Amino acid sequence: MSRWAPDARERLETAALDLFVENGYEATTVAQIAERAGLNRATFFRHFADKREVLFGGEDVLAGLFAEGIRDAAPGAAPLECLRAALAAVEVVMTPHRRAAAAKRVAVLASATELQERGLLKHARTSQSIIAALRERGVDELTARLGAEVGLLAFSVAFGRWMKAGDDQPFAPLAAAALGELQARMAELDPAASLSA
Amino acid sequence: MSRWAPDARERLETAALDLFVENGYEATTVAQIAERAGLNRATFFRHFADKREVLFGGEDVLAGLFAEGIRDAAPGAAPLECLRAALAAVEVVMTPHRRAAAAKRVAVLASATELQERGLLKHARTSQSIIAALRERGVDELTARLGAEVGLLAFSVAFGRWMKAGDDQPFAPLAAAALGELQARMAELDPAASLSA
Repeated sequence: MSRWAPDARERLETAALDLFVENGYEATTVAQIAERAGLNRATFFRHFADKREVLFGGEDVLAGLFAEGIRDAAPGAAPLECLRAALAAVEVVMTPHRRAAAAKRVAVLASATELQERGLLKHARTSQSIIAALRERGVDELTARLGAEVGLLAFSVAFGRWMKAGDDQPFAPLAAAALGELQARMAELDPAASLSA
Repeated sequence: MSRWAPDARERLETAALDLFVENGYEATTVAQIAERAGLNRATFFRHFADKREVLFGGEDVLAGLFAEGIRDAAPGAAPLECLRAALAAVEVVMTPHRRAAAAKRVAVLASATELQERGLLKHARTSQSIIAALRERGVDELTARLGAEVGLLAFSVAFGRWMKAGDDQPFAPLAAAALGELQARMAELDPAASLSA
């Protein structure tokens, strides 16, 4: 019950998610979350700015990993290649623990508008992080913005499939497949242009 | 000063924007907005669910126009052609009044996280509206999701340019140009694939 528990963050996240599912997001207090995790309220606020934030700690990690993957892509790699590297870089946090929490989290997020709003804000920040990493490689602004949208759409599609897959299904191949499908869809948006190209 | 003033909605929007710029979003109350508009608090809440919403009335109109443009596109039109129709359909609300308000609105939105969150929620709902309209035309789910992202990115780019243009600059040509630029950028995401196509 030490307030310095090294796994405090993860315990708070698990406790919060369980309580949100059991009693609803609105009805759950920060004090209850801390108690369930065997910690106190002050410890909660050392890790999370507010009750909403406990659901979104993983998003900041994802944003950092995407950017890192893009920075570490081969010199001269095309934007799509960089996005493939970004999606591969998040594999490390796509653990069975996250998969087990994912379905609960989706249900909780759907239950309150303020949670959807926070999720969209995180999404926008992740997008900014991808755009900045692509810009650093000399990709022009508009291509970087398009790339971020395509990359995050691929992530979303792959995540949906990964959530429903077994624990032995790694994330990276699903992400690469989704990105490939989107690449084909870009041509389908304007078949006439593709035919005449 | 009738509470049935036919232009109550627009007067409330204008009053709110002016007060947000003068005194800040947080410090402004609904009562003050109503007073500035020469209306009462109850009238405000007949038009808007909360203080935030007064900044986003235009977004719901845009979502409806996008969907209408897609539904009215020529039979057999490719998805990109439908997006072009969607962007052309919003021309009707891109008035000098909106242009004059746009820069103020951008500044106010940047001043509070809760406004950015609401803006992103509206954006997501507009995206859903575009996806639904494309799906109704038989476009597959993933192409529709990609199309919505591309269409909204074109809108955002065109809107930024239109905001800075003169009152004689219509919106539709800017939107068509932005969509064309994005089309070219899709090929640049993976130049190797384009060369071998």
